[in-house]
Amino acid sequence: MTTRALGSELLEPFDCNPLTRVVYGPGSILQLGKLARDYGASRVVLFTDSGILATGHIDRCLQSLQAAGVATTLFSGVHPNPSSDDVDQGVQVAREAQADFLIAVGGGSSIDCAKGVNFVLTGGGTIHDYWGVGKARGPMLPLIVAPTTAGTGSEAQSYALISDAKTHVKMACGDQRASCKVAILDPELTVSMPRSVTAATGIDALSHAIESHVTTRRNSVSQSFSRRAFRLLSQALPIVLDEPAHLPARGAALLGAHWAGAAIENSMLGATHALANPLTATYGITHGVAIGIMLPHVIRYNEPAVSGLYAELAATLPCDAKSDRAQGREKQGGEKLKAGEILAGFVEQVVRQAGQPTNLLELGVEESRLNELAQAAAVQWTGTFNPRPVDVNSLEELYRCALSH
Amino acid sequence: MTTRALGSELLEPFDCNPLTRVVYGPGSILQLGKLARDYGASRVVLFTDSGILATGHIDRCLQSLQAAGVATTLFSGVHPNPSSDDVDQGVQVAREAQADFLIAVGGGSSIDCAKGVNFVLTGGGTIHDYWGVGKARGPMLPLIVAPTTAGTGSEAQSYALISDAKTHVKMACGDQRASCKVAILDPELTVSMPRSVTAATGIDALSHAIESHVTTRRNSVSQSFSRRAFRLLSQALPIVLDEPAHLPARGAALLGAHWAGAAIENSMLGATHALANPLTATYGITHGVAIGIMLPHVIRYNEPAVSGLYAELAATLPCDAKSDRAQGREKQGGEKLKAGEILAGFVEQVVRQAGQPTNLLELGVEESRLNELAQAAAVQWTGTFNPRPVDVNSLEELYRCALSH
Ligand SMILES: [Fe+2]
Ligand SMILES: [Fe+2]
Repeated sequence: MTTRALGSELLEPFDCNPLTRVVYGPGSILQLGKLARDYGASRVVLFTDSGILATGHIDRCLQSLQAAGVATTLFSGVHPNPSSDDVDQGVQVAREAQADFLIAVGGGSSIDCAKGVNFVLTGGGTIHDYWGVGKARGPMLPLIVAPTTAGTGSEAQSYALISDAKTHVKMACGDQRASCKVAILDPELTVSMPRSVTAATGIDALSHAIESHVTTRRNSVSQSFSRRAFRLLSQALPIVLDEPAHLPARGAALLGAHWAGAAIENSMLGATHALANPLTATYGITHGVAIGIMLPHVIRYNEPAVSGLYAELAATLPCDAKSDRAQGREKQGGEKLKAGEILAGFVEQVVRQAGQPTNLLELGVEESRLNELAQAAAVQWTGTFNPRPVDVNSLEELYRCALSH
Repeated sequence: MTTRALGSELLEPFDCNPLTRVVYGPGSILQLGKLARDYGASRVVLFTDSGILATGHIDRCLQSLQAAGVATTLFSGVHPNPSSDDVDQGVQVAREAQADFLIAVGGGSSIDCAKGVNFVLTGGGTIHDYWGVGKARGPMLPLIVAPTTAGTGSEAQSYALISDAKTHVKMACGDQRASCKVAILDPELTVSMPRSVTAATGIDALSHAIESHVTTRRNSVSQSFSRRAFRLLSQALPIVLDEPAHLPARGAALLGAHWAGAAIENSMLGATHALANPLTATYGITHGVAIGIMLPHVIRYNEPAVSGLYAELAATLPCDAKSDRAQGREKQGGEKLKAGEILAGFVEQVVRQAGQPTNLLELGVEESRLNELAQAAAVQWTGTFNPRPVDVNSLEELYRCALSH
């Protein structure tokens, strides 16, 4: 008996527990006060950073909370890549305020800091006690977040990324109870991003969509999120880089980053993130810049393993989004480019449009340290989910490809 | 200043609160006992119907619940299109059992009945008191369901459809608190469906994917669900009709029906369902049979309003899934068929493969009663969400098209 084949859909078993309500739309931040009250807030601590404080977004949040009769304490001391010190300070503020509810308005750092504070505030000890999965010690406070960047997708995840203040080791602390009750996705909050932040966070989100789509942990749910995210981000990023005030494109980028975050929650990430982390730790290179350099090389490396999956993504690219090289080849009627090559070319084009560096030499990375970097990359957890296995040798080779590309 | 256009993604504001954990995979029903215990069950009432009782699925459920130490009372008296009488009986059984938890294993009828019982058991009165949206009177019991058909997608919805036992009016009773805590999607439970049930429920699910994708209430979330559902169902239905034991295709159909149900929860349905309901009420025609006849005509009617959206769906059809007519045209290099025509042709092909009637005359519908039917269809709530407006005249014309097609 011949058994008919069933398309390309992956049907691995999965267990998916969506925990976050999504309220999307321009101006949706004005619902913050009512939503907080609906979920039982009476004394709130609102986490943000000094950059956001300067934009006026926080004023609107405070007015909305005040109108809803919710007492609010502001903690605007969150630093980029928040550390255990940020968490400790936040916990102190929340204890003094006798907080029964947390809110974060800002980039991934503010959101991660609020999640980290929630672990320690409700379970005691230090954030180190919560490194790993499922370490929460009881019920946690309800959390509402409103991202002001379209990047990490932290608002869709149960993980807080907190660095040890001394060793700078990044600790991923995850528990379903740490998930946000509500994510308010208001594109108006993202219009004020500087262009370099739009670029670095947007390229990071794009990498989340592409990497999560092909990991060894992918399943039907995560791939749907990944495809949805890639479709939105690939349409939106070229526009928001040109026209920062283009609200529909800002909305698409914000939603795309959110769904990419939801995909990660279900499928993890791959070698691009394993390679980027040591570049950030050793040279202080911005995450999204390191990602933009490494992603095209990882896509080409993975192509033999997952070309069909890359083809699904490439098929959704509008023709004019493909690189000149890919378009030229197709016009000449020559051999078609591989899907991975089309995707890699698209990412390179976005990185160039953003004005980000395209190789490691530009950033001062020394060839003599590539082996050391590769050894650090080889022990990154995220690399274990890459669809084509990586080791110190292949990771060093990937750095070498990126050195003077 | 020219503003660049942003692809086809619809970016209307939305508020989406996913409430149901999905546990998918062959054999996942064996997790029933553990899941029920994890969510606090001690005394359960399990709703099913006599057909499912005969399959042996329920034995496995009872064993799993017993192994987990959960006391279970069986209510196997649910009738198709459950009525207020079914609900009243279920409430009595649940009261006697002092139930603190509900489970439903069966088709949409068992699931809807359990939801209906939950309203009355926890809030008092009769099911009529809960007709509408948000009428629950307080917390409801946790509910876990395992569908045995790939059809209604009721397990993804907060609505219970219950008929008045006397007037047969269908009451939609919806409240977020009525949503399932967990939907166990085990394709093995669906293998035992008779072919006619596979066909009627599968075609119903396909219509949910297509109708929800184009309603006036559609948004970015609902359309992602609709696309995902259409992709899975269009690949799976032609296979499960040929090879009932094809487990991956059963899995794809079950997931497809589930995501289509989730799409409806966010976007409602359209004119096909408005037209099908009076056929069921007046002539007792099976819902999925009425849907299979009316859907192609509604697609053709809607084509001028939503051809771009239909094109998105048609683009995901594998070439051999398109009708012979569509393939022939493309081969001859002639004018391409409209997307709506391709979709309508695909639905007609599935209906023929299923062996379901393709017109209303076959089912004894009289031409003289079309106006009466159209008047009943015109007052169906669901018709108001159709992307091209419908009234008594256009609905009668749609019935006429379907009379001897
Ligand atoms: Fe990242
Ligand atoms: Fe239906």
